[in-house]
Amino acid sequence: MTLQEALQQIRPVSAEKLATVQARLDSQTKPRGSLGRLEEFARRFVAITGRETVRAKTIFTFAGDHGVCAEGVSAFPREVTPQMVLNFLAGGAAVNALARHAGAGVTVVDMGVDYEFPAHESLLDRKIARGTANFAQGPAMTREQALQAIEAGIGVAQGCAAGGIDLVGTGDMGIGNTTPSAAIAAVFTGLPLEAVTHRGTGIDDAGLVRKLDAIRRGLEINRPDPGDPVDVLAKVGGFEIGGIAGLVLGCAALGLPVVIDGFISTAGALIASELHPQVRDYIFAAHKSVEIGHTAMLERIGQQPILDLQMRLGEGTGGALAMGLIEAALAGLREIATFEDAGVSRGSEK
Amino acid sequence: MTLQEALQQIRPVSAEKLATVQARLDSQTKPRGSLGRLEEFARRFVAITGRETVRAKTIFTFAGDHGVCAEGVSAFPREVTPQMVLNFLAGGAAVNALARHAGAGVTVVDMGVDYEFPAHESLLDRKIARGTANFAQGPAMTREQALQAIEAGIGVAQGCAAGGIDLVGTGDMGIGNTTPSAAIAAVFTGLPLEAVTHRGTGIDDAGLVRKLDAIRRGLEINRPDPGDPVDVLAKVGGFEIGGIAGLVLGCAALGLPVVIDGFISTAGALIASELHPQVRDYIFAAHKSVEIGHTAMLERIGQQPILDLQMRLGEGTGGALAMGLIEAALAGLREIATFEDAGVSRGSEK
Repeated sequence: MTLQEALQQIRPVSAEKLATVQARLDSQTKPRGSLGRLEEFARRFVAITGRETVRAKTIFTFAGDHGVCAEGVSAFPREVTPQMVLNFLAGGAAVNALARHAGAGVTVVDMGVDYEFPAHESLLDRKIARGTANFAQGPAMTREQALQAIEAGIGVAQGCAAGGIDLVGTGDMGIGNTTPSAAIAAVFTGLPLEAVTHRGTGIDDAGLVRKLDAIRRGLEINRPDPGDPVDVLAKVGGFEIGGIAGLVLGCAALGLPVVIDGFISTAGALIASELHPQVRDYIFAAHKSVEIGHTAMLERIGQQPILDLQMRLGEGTGGALAMGLIEAALAGLREIATFEDAGVSRGSEK
Repeated sequence: MTLQEALQQIRPVSAEKLATVQARLDSQTKPRGSLGRLEEFARRFVAITGRETVRAKTIFTFAGDHGVCAEGVSAFPREVTPQMVLNFLAGGAAVNALARHAGAGVTVVDMGVDYEFPAHESLLDRKIARGTANFAQGPAMTREQALQAIEAGIGVAQGCAAGGIDLVGTGDMGIGNTTPSAAIAAVFTGLPLEAVTHRGTGIDDAGLVRKLDAIRRGLEINRPDPGDPVDVLAKVGGFEIGGIAGLVLGCAALGLPVVIDGFISTAGALIASELHPQVRDYIFAAHKSVEIGHTAMLERIGQQPILDLQMRLGEGTGGALAMGLIEAALAGLREIATFEDAGVSRGSEK
């Protein structure tokens, strides 16, 4: 499916279907609305999918390297990107542990890691190049590469739809990738760089100065056009961010709920949202990251974070936790008795 | 175990044990501290219990009726308390659905419901009386009854310790019970009544006026002594609130982590905390309720809520959700590879 085809297929979630689910929730033995956002999760999941159970769920951890690392923007060396991909494939990273706990699979999508991986059943090879160019000196990628990244993500969504995956999670791995994400946040929110640029994996004050400087130069040299999200992705983005944008668009086009993780995933989702604002209907925002600027991106997309656990890890870790809460909400919908069946008197709630 | 014995057994959680767990977390393949509060949950659970897995977990839903219902303080009729207990025992309430999803048991503790239940394997009969007296006109219960309620809760904790339950949840059922809970909040936080009294299951404006008036009269007539938490429980509390206070005290005395649910559970935990402030070390605050005044009570106890999902149901529903997050944190501790084992380069995080 091309980007244009995906954009043409996106429809708002049916208000009528949402209301039908809410009516059922209101017949259950609890004060109306008292399960709060759990009711929203159940309502939206059922209205999107037509299902009340999750047959299978997978977190897609998109990985890529970043030329801007040459500017000294990360506390970790670039070699950690492929090392962590191998850790994901061995099942030893945080996202693996949290996904196992949630009963979700983890698939790594290599969008552009500077390493050649052996084939693995949990790895999708969608490599566009061995890392982006340094966007502080010119475009991160070509427009063709940006489109290729987005369409690779759309293809992942198509695989989910064909494979019976009802709940999709996004995740990221790429040393340096809070830098392009902050650049994307600045372009679309219009906020000053300082309000959207933070410490990522833990850079010190000098590193933060370098990071801000690299983004400032990148925006000045490249002049990304906020009215053209593909241009923004190409000029100051990353391959994994493009893949995430595509997955979000593909999920919206195909009617799949997508749980976006933290700062980097939200930068990808924001590109999707700028291409078609209705993607918001399909997005569950897993958590509020420690990274500043995250909330501003979520506000622009039009979703509120589900969790706030002071996390800043990425990979899809927040998404794994949020999936458990969405499934809890569905358990409530399926299993809570009605006032009638349980013989419980109704109240006079306002 | 008597209240005095429990109070004497409460010890702070070992700072050394907490540091040992944190050191392990810091050896794992993730930026230091990047799992945020999940690291706190893992650290505290292991330091409290000496275990890294939860063998079994149970939510205890304490139930009782309230004489103050005669003042018209609830949107639901009093008969709903026993009706909902029967719904819990049949497995049809929200707490049952969410606890099943989390793999937790639900046990109802009848502390004072105005109904005689048949014996049931999920019901503990600890009935003190068939409802409290109307505290707007005099004490809700005698001091002896208050002590009996607390010691019943301590006994529930003893049963957990003996039965291999490693994670304990509190919950409540009792039509009218946000009214005594708001009274307790006002007594200990010193906040004006209007800042801690809200709509409960959904009373209208006239009902809220009646509720505020009932509490105001109750505090004036009974003059509960904030320096004597048992007096506060007796004067303006409830049997289920006393049971919850006892369960929290017992868990702290016996070294069991206890997940407290929302507004009513927190009122019980606050009585425990006023009796011995160190209980805070053993408390996990499941969520922030919609009820105003909840945050002020949690602040006084010294714990922050884990979730904020705009819930206001009680029963132990928030606790069931939080238990899943605590277990996810333990999965991370057990399963995330170290930098050394995974061959991942370390960073230079500040």
